[in-house]
Amino acid sequence: MRKITNEELHRPTVDEFAAMGRIPVVVVLDNVRSAQNVGAFFRTSDAFAVERVMLCGITATPPSRDIHKSALGAELTVEWAHYSTTAECATALREQGYTLLCVEQVEGAVMLDELEVDTQKRYALIFGNEVAGVDQAVVDMCDGAIEIPQAGTKHSINVSVAGGVVLWPFFAALRSHIANRE
Amino acid sequence: MRKITNEELHRPTVDEFAAMGRIPVVVVLDNVRSAQNVGAFFRTSDAFAVERVMLCGITATPPSRDIHKSALGAELTVEWAHYSTTAECATALREQGYTLLCVEQVEGAVMLDELEVDTQKRYALIFGNEVAGVDQAVVDMCDGAIEIPQAGTKHSINVSVAGGVVLWPFFAALRSHIANRE
Repeated sequence: MRKITNEELHRPTVDEFAAMGRIPVVVVLDNVRSAQNVGAFFRTSDAFAVERVMLCGITATPPSRDIHKSALGAELTVEWAHYSTTAECATALREQGYTLLCVEQVEGAVMLDELEVDTQKRYALIFGNEVAGVDQAVVDMCDGAIEIPQAGTKHSINVSVAGGVVLWPFFAALRSHIANRE
Repeated sequence: MRKITNEELHRPTVDEFAAMGRIPVVVVLDNVRSAQNVGAFFRTSDAFAVERVMLCGITATPPSRDIHKSALGAELTVEWAHYSTTAECATALREQGYTLLCVEQVEGAVMLDELEVDTQKRYALIFGNEVAGVDQAVVDMCDGAIEIPQAGTKHSINVSVAGGVVLWPFFAALRSHIANRE
């Protein structure tokens, strides 16, 4: 199996990407401490054509050398905004009609393998701080929660890895939205 | 939705985890440069109860402060081995009956959303270097390849994020293997 060259990948240019559609998903980072994790979220959000990344509270914002290093420049192709608090961001997204889902181990969470992505909805997926997770007050504002089933001693994976795991099924279900706008 | 406490997660202890079954999946890291990525793979492999992590070539091995920091100690619960070359590791795994799949953009790769995990097989999933990907000579030894469909300008996500994205459907399909051995 011959490896495909970068040229053969037919990657959209920055301008072509800007003109493309997006999956109806916004990523919300609730006080994510590590700029490296923020950068990885940008890179995944570029790959899966996420609408926007919301950087809340202490979450680092571009321009940042550490974000740039792990985003490999994806912080320049993916739209983002900063909110002083995640609650403020969640309120704004709810008013815009987004379904708010936190990725967290909470009572009544839907297990990821039982998740049904509704192609008619717009989703805001909220990922939490590396230690504290999504703040309880933010959880209380959500329409639901998604839990990644796990079997290990930690019951916890890196937040940017969790981002990929959860964003992937949304991309797979919603990628038909990515038609060229032209 | 109340957040579940660590006590309520019923995480297995290190001893209980050691006695549990594993999903029939081995993770192979082909010259992964960043110890932080290696640590994240250990953490994900603990969460998804992977059999073993194979650290090949220049891939860092425990004990390592950087691995420990991102693995949060999962490098102590997940079995691992080091091979000087990935080819040597691939040969050994093939002899042990594993189906070798590289995660790479190659001709004829199966797109992740079309992947069918065979519950009768044992898999070795090979992830490549951050820049070069999986070496062509190693790709040539594989039974198949998995590609993560992407729409962005980079056509590339962080290797430890790709690890989570690809390991998740294997865990979801194979978790019935994790019965307590006792």
